Amino acid sequence: MYKFEIIKEDNFTKARTGLISTSHGRVETPAFMPVATQGTVKSIIPEELQDLGFRMLISNAYHLYLRPGHKEINNLGGLHKFMNWRNSIATDSGGFQVLSLSKKRKVKEDGIIFQSHLDGSEHFFTPKLSIEIQQAVGSDIMMCLDECPPYSTDYSQIEKSLQLTTRWAKMCKEHKSGEQNALFGIVQGGIFESLRKRSCEQLIDIGFDGYSIGGLGIGEEPERTHELIEYSSGLLPANKTRYAMGIGNPLDIIKSVCYGVDLFDCVIPTRNARNGTLFTNNGKLVIKNAQFTNDSNPIDEYCKCYTCKNYSRAYLRHLYISKEILAIRLLTMHNLYFFSDLMTSIRDAIKDGTFTEFKNRFETAEVI
Amino acid sequence: MYKFEIIKEDNFTKARTGLISTSHGRVETPAFMPVATQGTVKSIIPEELQDLGFRMLISNAYHLYLRPGHKEINNLGGLHKFMNWRNSIATDSGGFQVLSLSKKRKVKEDGIIFQSHLDGSEHFFTPKLSIEIQQAVGSDIMMCLDECPPYSTDYSQIEKSLQLTTRWAKMCKEHKSGEQNALFGIVQGGIFESLRKRSCEQLIDIGFDGYSIGGLGIGEEPERTHELIEYSSGLLPANKTRYAMGIGNPLDIIKSVCYGVDLFDCVIPTRNARNGTLFTNNGKLVIKNAQFTNDSNPIDEYCKCYTCKNYSRAYLRHLYISKEILAIRLLTMHNLYFFSDLMTSIRDAIKDGTFTEFKNRFETAEVI
Repeated sequence: MYKFEIIKEDNFTKARTGLISTSHGRVETPAFMPVATQGTVKSIIPEELQDLGFRMLISNAYHLYLRPGHKEINNLGGLHKFMNWRNSIATDSGGFQVLSLSKKRKVKEDGIIFQSHLDGSEHFFTPKLSIEIQQAVGSDIMMCLDECPPYSTDYSQIEKSLQLTTRWAKMCKEHKSGEQNALFGIVQGGIFESLRKRSCEQLIDIGFDGYSIGGLGIGEEPERTHELIEYSSGLLPANKTRYAMGIGNPLDIIKSVCYGVDLFDCVIPTRNARNGTLFTNNGKLVIKNAQFTNDSNPIDEYCKCYTCKNYSRAYLRHLYISKEILAIRLLTMHNLYFFSDLMTSIRDAIKDGTFTEFKNRFETAEVI
Repeated sequence: MYKFEIIKEDNFTKARTGLISTSHGRVETPAFMPVATQGTVKSIIPEELQDLGFRMLISNAYHLYLRPGHKEINNLGGLHKFMNWRNSIATDSGGFQVLSLSKKRKVKEDGIIFQSHLDGSEHFFTPKLSIEIQQAVGSDIMMCLDECPPYSTDYSQIEKSLQLTTRWAKMCKEHKSGEQNALFGIVQGGIFESLRKRSCEQLIDIGFDGYSIGGLGIGEEPERTHELIEYSSGLLPANKTRYAMGIGNPLDIIKSVCYGVDLFDCVIPTRNARNGTLFTNNGKLVIKNAQFTNDSNPIDEYCKCYTCKNYSRAYLRHLYISKEILAIRLLTMHNLYFFSDLMTSIRDAIKDGTFTEFKNRFETAEVI
């Protein structure tokens, strides 16, 4: 089952709050999905994610297929049970990962031949297999297999590629069985508006539960990313969920919400934490810097996360410099809290009719 | 302040339960102290350690002196505040670590010259400095600086060494100020009973709050370790806390409790977890083994830890194989629970007058 209701529309932008319902509960939108590539949000347990306010994660068909295997996960009761997460799970189809992680791959009409980045073994990913994997693990929101060409690809190649993505999307819809798992089409078309338009139209023709805007944030300027999200989002049905894949930084998210986007995911909060870079209300903070050696303040004096309530910058810097695992855990908690708090603030501002003020204040601060 | 009361003595062995009181609370003995070398029990937060039942950790003067520095910790309010641990903290003096970790060192009459294992910088560790460090970080139970010669050292060298350790112990006691921090002497003497005896007598002459049995578990056969703990423990005052340093495996702990030992610490539960080796009621389990690929059972069906209540061996194996940080965290939680549960069982058996049965059952099972 999949349902999407719009709860409140902003009067001045295309921003809206909404409610996604899956068989694993409800997700208030706009929502950010932490990334659980290998069946875990790195270093964090599900109870913590729940407490942080997250109700949906995103995992990945490519990774789960290669390790531990979708059939194995299915035999163990599905991904929710396997990773002990009772709320919703979305999955990416694996199209992006096959093309970005695999050393050798060849895109053919009926799928992608590739070598595993883990052991070099050869595999053949088809639209049918991608859906089989996502259904086997019990994804609440599946993605169609797509081809995501590099940023520098020329118009005619992108055109061919998006036609293939459309044909694969149609096959994905045909291979999906039952009503348990929702299916989103992925808009491609590179940096070309005419091709983005064609992709949107073709996917809408097939008809999906929601629409993902893919192939962005892969090298183009941030302003171009924003323009293309605005353009694509404007072409998608207003009553369907819109998901900006791999987006993004807080500012990217706020801009995209303006354009009517409902869902986001990005490795930024978790990966930045592992690199010691923290989001604060006063901009980014690099915890390893010597200036924090004797600093008894928390990362962010206004933050109410577990890490900020209990630990000084000096301690966190010590853990980070000492390569202690606890550093990653505590810093990840902080960054995830920042993103969860950002999404709550966005939803509250839309509900209160103050989203434009919120957005302006955020953009003026220019801290992120 | 430091107080040690004996609560219950076993009728058949020298085992006893007791209660340590420090200015940071009470610790029921026999107790196991998780190791927080760098001011953190690797991957675990203080609230979890508290929930697991631990009331005292052990940290290390050598490590804290080198990084982040004892003066820095003191300026930040002491180690308890720095690492957010409200219960008791013991510290090792650094003698063992200087000799085991530093590449270059020279033992002199008034201390040890050594190069930092972190950056090669040269330092001079004296009894006075060791006490200064331990008082600066706010240790509840400090150790005297000792020389811990390698297992293979001959009688005359060990004899000279223990005399030095005695002279240093006396200086440590002289340099200690106030009543806030307890001080334990460390019994040395290698594998020679006559030297162990002399070390005990000299330390008792000086007089300490408790006595640590050091220089064991460094190469000798386990049976010899047990004999030397029994011998040394028997020479120490019955009304003082006895601490077997770096001990040990569950069986070593149970044997030592028989000989009247009250305190233990060891990296085994945490280090083994990081290596994927888990303690269970049916013996050790190596989580990476292929036999667990599809195993939906918990690590130990009788275990009530968070990890066993929520995750399958298959999932934990997947995390471990995938080098996920969460693997270390979940496996560490399990092993620490096992050790905490073991200590609770030991204390309960002594209180119930069933310690001998408990010990026999444990030894017969021969699973650890």
